[in-house]
Amino acid sequence: MEKINGYIASNEQRFLDELFDLLRIPSVSADSKYAADVARAAEFIKNKLIEAGAENVEVCPTNGHPIVYGEKIIDPALPTVIVYGHYDVQPADPFELWTTPPFEPTVRDGKIYARGSCDDKGQMYMHIKAFEAMMKNDALTCNIRFMIEGEEECGSSHLGPWIMENKHRLKGDVILISDTSIIANDIPSLESGLRGLSYVEVEVTGPNRDLHSGVYGGAVANPIQALCEMIASLKDENQHITIPGFYDKVLELSKAEREEMARTPFNLDEYKKDLNVNDVRGEGGYSTLERTGIRPTVECNGIWGGYIGEGAKTVLPSKAFAKISMRLVPNQVSNEITTLFSDHFNRIAPAGIKVEVRPHHGGEPVVTPTDSVAFKAASMAMEETFGKKPIPTRGGGSIPIVALFEKELGLKSVLMGFGLDSDLIHSPNEHYGIFNFKKGIETIPLFFRNFAQLSK
Amino acid sequence: MEKINGYIASNEQRFLDELFDLLRIPSVSADSKYAADVARAAEFIKNKLIEAGAENVEVCPTNGHPIVYGEKIIDPALPTVIVYGHYDVQPADPFELWTTPPFEPTVRDGKIYARGSCDDKGQMYMHIKAFEAMMKNDALTCNIRFMIEGEEECGSSHLGPWIMENKHRLKGDVILISDTSIIANDIPSLESGLRGLSYVEVEVTGPNRDLHSGVYGGAVANPIQALCEMIASLKDENQHITIPGFYDKVLELSKAEREEMARTPFNLDEYKKDLNVNDVRGEGGYSTLERTGIRPTVECNGIWGGYIGEGAKTVLPSKAFAKISMRLVPNQVSNEITTLFSDHFNRIAPAGIKVEVRPHHGGEPVVTPTDSVAFKAASMAMEETFGKKPIPTRGGGSIPIVALFEKELGLKSVLMGFGLDSDLIHSPNEHYGIFNFKKGIETIPLFFRNFAQLSK
Repeated sequence: MEKINGYIASNEQRFLDELFDLLRIPSVSADSKYAADVARAAEFIKNKLIEAGAENVEVCPTNGHPIVYGEKIIDPALPTVIVYGHYDVQPADPFELWTTPPFEPTVRDGKIYARGSCDDKGQMYMHIKAFEAMMKNDALTCNIRFMIEGEEECGSSHLGPWIMENKHRLKGDVILISDTSIIANDIPSLESGLRGLSYVEVEVTGPNRDLHSGVYGGAVANPIQALCEMIASLKDENQHITIPGFYDKVLELSKAEREEMARTPFNLDEYKKDLNVNDVRGEGGYSTLERTGIRPTVECNGIWGGYIGEGAKTVLPSKAFAKISMRLVPNQVSNEITTLFSDHFNRIAPAGIKVEVRPHHGGEPVVTPTDSVAFKAASMAMEETFGKKPIPTRGGGSIPIVALFEKELGLKSVLMGFGLDSDLIHSPNEHYGIFNFKKGIETIPLFFRNFAQLSK
Repeated sequence: MEKINGYIASNEQRFLDELFDLLRIPSVSADSKYAADVARAAEFIKNKLIEAGAENVEVCPTNGHPIVYGEKIIDPALPTVIVYGHYDVQPADPFELWTTPPFEPTVRDGKIYARGSCDDKGQMYMHIKAFEAMMKNDALTCNIRFMIEGEEECGSSHLGPWIMENKHRLKGDVILISDTSIIANDIPSLESGLRGLSYVEVEVTGPNRDLHSGVYGGAVANPIQALCEMIASLKDENQHITIPGFYDKVLELSKAEREEMARTPFNLDEYKKDLNVNDVRGEGGYSTLERTGIRPTVECNGIWGGYIGEGAKTVLPSKAFAKISMRLVPNQVSNEITTLFSDHFNRIAPAGIKVEVRPHHGGEPVVTPTDSVAFKAASMAMEETFGKKPIPTRGGGSIPIVALFEKELGLKSVLMGFGLDSDLIHSPNEHYGIFNFKKGIETIPLFFRNFAQLSK
């Protein structure tokens, strides 16, 4: 390991320069005007995998954005690790809230500021560089396969079909993913569960055209008002979700499990101070960590309708829209929840209002076993680099493909992320610590070593 | 009158061509990027007033957009009519919903399609052409003063100060305004009242930055959800407004007055069919005409927050916004209602949410007397050109300056409009009938004749 760490230390600046080149490509998968950039990012990953020593590297076309595959099979008798990551990023708007432009990576206070710096280009690229370090020092202890996709931020809708067609080259023992967070740079942690997702877009129509609010106001259903009423009614005064059947399959944790969770370090005052809110708001009877870890939720991610320009316009609009997502927990099923939502939303529309619910994408919630060889290999690796045993946590976010891997490949995932919740992923000024980038590159080879040893 | 009508008939095409030139100027007052166009429209009006025979014509600067003044004082002993109108227009977006571009006037089925064709360039320009017809035929029977402003669509905020500084040249007997509608081309009507307006913009802030809805969803107040709850709560299940004190000053009409109103021709089935809604929605206990004519209302004119682009983004945003307007009836007071709203909206904000309410503009409700000389002059003029006595109606829209004229100049207004409620003012595909444009130009000289005679 000393040789590897020496190699990492002496190549640090080059690793960063390469990451910066990748961050300069605005590979926003959700917006079709960036399609050429997404393709360019895929080519970039392909070339870097080849340079690092991967074989059979290919940019695999799909009906959406491509998946980059590469492998290094050193011995069929050794265990095989499949590294998953994504090279696409979230949209960067509102651009004006970025201190420095989102696609011109800039270092401030030891942090790399750029869209995708943490989610997931920075975390994914650690694996390519750790692989390079192992290859250049003859220290690769497992077979490795890379599967780096370009649609994670818009639903991974073409990954499933691609996996089904490529099962022959996806034989392995575990999926390794760095797309999650640790509690703090001095409090390492490992995700042991992820919420699922159901994401819909709703369109609410009142009159067949925009009306003058003076002439018609007070007499005709206003779709904005109706949409507000419908969204407001999704939660009761206890912040409990009112969609009939929504909680039917929610797995309640035992008292012992909740007590175990309550031992996770968490400071509510610091949390409120960090967000500058006078209080938190969530489901009655549950703590903040429980609200984000083991309880499902409904959030409106976007809303628009009527006149939103400068000044005043007295319009009673024809339509209003919202993007609404639900985070799911075991054993809720994404498709079922989408249907429950859609039926409910249509049912509660007031007179004079038509509703259309369009499903965007979804993913199933997962719980990863903490007693597996892979989890132990990750835990030991982090303990060695951080000097502290990582705390198992339940993350609030969703990586829908984790459930997909389990279903299609029969493989569990290890969620060994190195980000921080304060990295502003999906927000303006997303950043990733150089400390975290380096720590990841150092920890990954230890995972491979441990996994090979523990698998014997 | 035969000479005048002959003049109008033989100049009809030129009148339309001139109006089209005016409609080609995108004089959107609410959006600062059109400021030069607004100035251009003012110059256009000035030149046309001079050509028509007005004197002392001036583009009067204000701290906002200018006011065009012009006059023709033929005899101080004669009554003086002050014509008010506006040359500014509403924003034209969404542009993609226009069949032909908003600033390229096009005639289809006898209607002029363009932003401002009805509101108010088309209706205002009738007065300049009627004035020209009277001047060219030596038939002007009253003194006339024009006061054409450029900020009606964004609050007329500089008209009040200008009027106070220019009272010496605003001496007169009545204000004549064409900026309202008739019931139908074969059912003429005259407005006898207008609702007031209170328009605010609200900004709701939750956490200090956009958050990942997976990591924070369910635990932190979402400003979109909070805004929806707050807007939804503004009306109860009976669509009665819940702002404390909102109805305190509302003048209830007598049973006799309501019975008189109920005689206004109105077909609810046609109304619903025209709007393609399965039902109307409004305050319980009142008819549709009462809801728009004699009852106040709250409407959300615009809402936005979070991610509103293509695809899906799992953001829990920091802020959400809405534009909200209230239509007022006698004796509600615009400033008081704005304060009641602001206090209420701040009071109902849930934990973790900060609220800012910014007043946009307002105007007082008015009732115009139906037994005045001016109202009779208008009624008789319309009866002569339409062949039917016009029905007095209570309009739902607001022309805030009508209350201002009453307060500052002590003058009542006559609201002799020629538009139709179906003209799509403030909407895509705004239009104005050539029939209505001509009918207006023919009716105005009759008003002047009648007003001079009845004033003797």
